Amino acid sequence: MEAYQHTVQYYETDQMSIVHHSNYIRWMEEARVDYLAQLGWGLDRLEALGAVSPITSLSVKYKQPTLFPQVISIQVTLTRFTGVRLYLHYVMENPQGEIVFEGDSEHCFQDRSGRILRLNKDLPAFAQVLREQLPTQP
Amino acid sequence: MEAYQHTVQYYETDQMSIVHHSNYIRWMEEARVDYLAQLGWGLDRLEALGAVSPITSLSVKYKQPTLFPQVISIQVTLTRFTGVRLYLHYVMENPQGEIVFEGDSEHCFQDRSGRILRLNKDLPAFAQVLREQLPTQP
Amino acid sequence: MEAYQHTVQYYETDQMSIVHHSNYIRWMEEARVDYLAQLGWGLDRLEALGAVSPITSLSVKYKQPTLFPQVISIQVTLTRFTGVRLYLHYVMENPQGEIVFEGDSEHCFQDRSGRILRLNKDLPAFAQVLREQLPTQP
Amino acid sequence: MEAYQHTVQYYETDQMSIVHHSNYIRWMEEARVDYLAQLGWGLDRLEALGAVSPITSLSVKYKQPTLFPQVISIQVTLTRFTGVRLYLHYVMENPQGEIVFEGDSEHCFQDRSGRILRLNKDLPAFAQVLREQLPTQP
Repeated sequence: MEAYQHTVQYYETDQMSIVHHSNYIRWMEEARVDYLAQLGWGLDRLEALGAVSPITSLSVKYKQPTLFPQVISIQVTLTRFTGVRLYLHYVMENPQGEIVFEGDSEHCFQDRSGRILRLNKDLPAFAQVLREQLPTQP
Repeated sequence: MEAYQHTVQYYETDQMSIVHHSNYIRWMEEARVDYLAQLGWGLDRLEALGAVSPITSLSVKYKQPTLFPQVISIQVTLTRFTGVRLYLHYVMENPQGEIVFEGDSEHCFQDRSGRILRLNKDLPAFAQVLREQLPTQP
Repeated sequence: MEAYQHTVQYYETDQMSIVHHSNYIRWMEEARVDYLAQLGWGLDRLEALGAVSPITSLSVKYKQPTLFPQVISIQVTLTRFTGVRLYLHYVMENPQGEIVFEGDSEHCFQDRSGRILRLNKDLPAFAQVLREQLPTQP
Repeated sequence: MEAYQHTVQYYETDQMSIVHHSNYIRWMEEARVDYLAQLGWGLDRLEALGAVSPITSLSVKYKQPTLFPQVISIQVTLTRFTGVRLYLHYVMENPQGEIVFEGDSEHCFQDRSGRILRLNKDLPAFAQVLREQLPTQP
């Protein structure tokens, strides 16, 4: 999977002259959306099939500030998939190749009525694609 | 009508150490939402009745920078109402009473299918309340 | 310490018709800023003294969606203070008193050159106020 | 000059299931930043030379909603330059080539102390590049 590239915008900076920390949460979404689209299962396709994907938790570490107008490279990997919940890991690098941020997010899928989807049954082709992305066991 | 108070947030600043200009557009919305709620016609009530209110144009002047953590006072006035389109004027003042921003916005109302509403017919009680807010002619 | 109140804004919703998850990170900041101001050590005072406060990590759980125009009550507590790092816990409740979000954040303090501050030495009065907020040991 | 491409992000949508209107103001900035960078005078270069560029007014028309995950093409043109003030025009098109938004913005340049710059004298090479971008008179 190709890393996602985000160009830091001026409006993402704050008066510390660095990117405000809330924006990294949005970049995680940008990279996740791109990751799913690369798999052929963009959020727009999922929503057209009646599935939305709320986030249920996230945990992140800010390692170095980022600056306007750096291009930040974001690598997403699927770390776990239970059939119901999806776990993604994110590593962000600045143009010097230094890791500036690491994070994890947890997601489920719901139909429009709020019912939690069991992807193996409700969206089996998507579940199969996700399983193929899991790190292979040694 | 009471002026709306917005407290400048740290995340609204940028690396010029002032509020980023895009946030004033959001403050216009905050003040407009509050204005309609003061009239008894909050956006949530309108949406429950099937009416959404897209913005169709806006025009603004940035007069002075604003700073974290100032409290900005925003006065909204209804300047024109055609039965279909609503025109609002906004004046923002800093804690010293200096005008920092002035703006105008234009809105229509639609049902969920995108049909433009004629408020005199589609929401006559709301239309009546709006007309009562218009400046009286001399 | 008084809970901080945040009114959900229309611009904070997304096309799932709930608040976008990135906004809770901003509300954590709003509540943290208010908490420090209640202690008499607002970020503006700290910055005037040459101290900025970057976030170093956060970890959050999204428990229930929140909706426009709910008023969300946010309770901040100081859970740990090492003299260098500050740990805060956040609980957010909707108007029905249901917990919608819990989170933790970790912060340090730096001078403008990026040097990490030891608050006991560099800002002893602030360090003292923080220690007084710590939960008392049984 | 090449048009700037912005991919609509999920976090830019609101509960009308369209892009929230405040984001177009940010896209204007993205396109303006890109325009200046294409000219060789990115905001980062200007700031390194001590010049910041506040916006002084803007006026926009929202013509059609935009949707996640459309790619929006934004064409920026310099319409007027007085030596002190810069006037830019923006046209945004959806993937079907329909105009979804038009806007104008007005900017000045200041040094860090807030003094308004006269670009012909203070940044003559930049002023020259801007003049070359002006539409030629018939």
